[in-house]
Amino acid sequence: MAIPIPADSPFSLANIPFGIFSTKSQAHPRPGVAIGEHILDLKVLALEGIFTDCEVTFPSDVLTHTTLNAFAALGRPTTSAVRAYIQSLLSQSSSPLHLNHSLLNRCTVKQIEATMHLPFDIGDFTDFTSSKTHAKNTHSGHGHGNVDADMFHPPRAASGRVSTILPSGTPIVRPVGHLPTSASPASLEDLSPDTPVESRTLARTTGFSLAPTNELDFELELAFFISVPTEHFERVPVEKTEDHIFGVVLLNDWSARDIQVPETLPFGAFNAKNFASTISPWVVTLDALEPFKIAHDIRRVPSYLVDKGDATYDISVTMEVIPGRLVEREVAVARSCLRNSYWTFRQMLAFHTLAGCRMRTGDLIGTGTLSGEDTTSLCSLVEQRKHYPNRMFLQDKDEVVFTAWCGSPQGGIGFGECRGVVLPARL
Amino acid sequence: MAIPIPADSPFSLANIPFGIFSTKSQAHPRPGVAIGEHILDLKVLALEGIFTDCEVTFPSDVLTHTTLNAFAALGRPTTSAVRAYIQSLLSQSSSPLHLNHSLLNRCTVKQIEATMHLPFDIGDFTDFTSSKTHAKNTHSGHGHGNVDADMFHPPRAASGRVSTILPSGTPIVRPVGHLPTSASPASLEDLSPDTPVESRTLARTTGFSLAPTNELDFELELAFFISVPTEHFERVPVEKTEDHIFGVVLLNDWSARDIQVPETLPFGAFNAKNFASTISPWVVTLDALEPFKIAHDIRRVPSYLVDKGDATYDISVTMEVIPGRLVEREVAVARSCLRNSYWTFRQMLAFHTLAGCRMRTGDLIGTGTLSGEDTTSLCSLVEQRKHYPNRMFLQDKDEVVFTAWCGSPQGGIGFGECRGVVLPARL
Repeated sequence: MAIPIPADSPFSLANIPFGIFSTKSQAHPRPGVAIGEHILDLKVLALEGIFTDCEVTFPSDVLTHTTLNAFAALGRPTTSAVRAYIQSLLSQSSSPLHLNHSLLNRCTVKQIEATMHLPFDIGDFTDFTSSKTHAKNTHSGHGHGNVDADMFHPPRAASGRVSTILPSGTPIVRPVGHLPTSASPASLEDLSPDTPVESRTLARTTGFSLAPTNELDFELELAFFISVPTEHFERVPVEKTEDHIFGVVLLNDWSARDIQVPETLPFGAFNAKNFASTISPWVVTLDALEPFKIAHDIRRVPSYLVDKGDATYDISVTMEVIPGRLVEREVAVARSCLRNSYWTFRQMLAFHTLAGCRMRTGDLIGTGTLSGEDTTSLCSLVEQRKHYPNRMFLQDKDEVVFTAWCGSPQGGIGFGECRGVVLPARL
Repeated sequence: MAIPIPADSPFSLANIPFGIFSTKSQAHPRPGVAIGEHILDLKVLALEGIFTDCEVTFPSDVLTHTTLNAFAALGRPTTSAVRAYIQSLLSQSSSPLHLNHSLLNRCTVKQIEATMHLPFDIGDFTDFTSSKTHAKNTHSGHGHGNVDADMFHPPRAASGRVSTILPSGTPIVRPVGHLPTSASPASLEDLSPDTPVESRTLARTTGFSLAPTNELDFELELAFFISVPTEHFERVPVEKTEDHIFGVVLLNDWSARDIQVPETLPFGAFNAKNFASTISPWVVTLDALEPFKIAHDIRRVPSYLVDKGDATYDISVTMEVIPGRLVEREVAVARSCLRNSYWTFRQMLAFHTLAGCRMRTGDLIGTGTLSGEDTTSLCSLVEQRKHYPNRMFLQDKDEVVFTAWCGSPQGGIGFGECRGVVLPARL
């Protein structure tokens, strides 16, 4: 192996996830693949003409761009061949990476020395609701007595905010929102000594004030990126959807529950979610996930969404909160999996194009919170607190860490981490 | 005047709206301003160095781009000065447009010979609900007995789909959706003779099938574009919002009501709206609207959204359906105004940044349907049909035309048109 790979690395030769990184010495973001504890700089390889020996001919300048959009838009036959060629560069003793030490040095960066960026220029972001448990736990008050019938026929999804999608590691400032004065210990009066008396009075009169959320939460999700765009008013059938999916990342759909409650009906969360969503920086391709395909449980689905065979993936996800303050408390943990999603990636994409909605390269589609029935698999604090009331909503300096994995730690592939630390509100 | 302006033109010297256009002979999209029945090609003027005489120094290459983003991002002091300079070029007899006939010929294009494009690269699209009447008419079944208290505290808004925002004139293909079989005359069986029997059975069993909407509707709105971006986690107070607003367009938020009903709760419309939204191509600047500022009615608002003085604009909007088929029927018309919005543009933007949501240049924010209390001012068919049951939902070949105007036809300014014709569903 041209680059050493620790046995328990999420980024084994079987993985080869794509991302966009920069370094102190070269601040320009550029494409790379993660391998062990290193990054292989694809821009260096492209500029050296190394990809001319790849079995498919493609414009290798796409690997010098600041996003993966142009590369992913080439389509799966090409991107799969490029990934396979990178695997051969790393593993074959006759490859330039083995024979040319200068090249190897120039195209190898330690992950710890790199800054990761968003992998794609994201045009639109959509988030589905896919977990029956999450739906039961969070939407039972909205007239959904029968979650199965009501929440999944038709599937439910919403557009989300793109401007605040962040790469893992970006701190999250506790959001401020429109909160009922009585429910909020930090009322307007407490917050800002120089608020005009007139405004304070109005806040009391209306019963609402501007206050930092007391119920900051996470939602543990997976999400996939679109590769080849679709035409406007083109419906993509379930069996053709994989032609349009590049790969998968972890997604933290940060949520402020007390801001969410009054604004939820009839349009769903707005300021309660639009302040931040964090994704893991390495995009695990469908090719890497292929060995982990499994049958999707038979579920009641409309005819246009029937998805047979090995339609989903055996992806495990975990979350933990690393407490920022050394007070004794019960910290939140969970372990779940993609199987808890009612819908497969393929069904989500097919449904999304049903009315003719156009998909562009780099569009991001989230699964929704992946909570399972078991109380150890609840993927948000608002759900965990129903069973573990001592688990507090996120405190300042708390860090939330998600991971995901397919197969065993030895021989499997990982997604790396999706992290974010909470900073105090700005008042 | 260097270019003749008909007395009733929406594009008088007082207007000077910005847009992006192309022509057959020069297919590259470029910035222009509408003046009378013509377009002044700003790229030609920029390349000729004409803007070096503008009172502000700015990088005039922004006027050679394919979108208005870089120009708008310069900020209002600069864009206002450029607009004033364009007015002087058109009106002053000593200007190059008057003295140099060759230049005038090269920079003048007839609107009828131009193709209009989206004016901005749009990063995010948000749509508010601002009309009490619309809220009462459409959300009364969602537990909102007291619309004032429930729908406007806090304000309600949702992220929308960017990939299907279209310039005026783009045809709309009737969307297909997940419809209850009983409610839909065009069931799966009727649609596709080669659908497998198994799928037909499933469709019957679940009680849903894939069918073209029978309730295609429009929503008459205004919308504004962001100029100077905001920082992530920066709250913009109401009084600073105008520094971030470039201008205003008409918006048709096309909606399929039968697709919308089952998917609305708890996240709002998804496939019912994500197939298309149409905007008028000429962006009317805040400078052009300044003479039409009026006081916003005093309303019950939270302290952080108090907006005093002349906080809104006297903008009239109209809609009409031009029937595509010559069957005798009652056609839909309406006339309303921005005053029917509970929120001002400034309040919408301030609320949008409350939790720290970042705004990027080119973001688009819609007012929501502008229905007024009078039955002649209902801005969607689903509302009009409550009072005029003979008005049908949109039929194939129907064309929907919106206009907007400030002041009188003589001496006022107009927005031009926002049009879209309905094409049959693709099955």
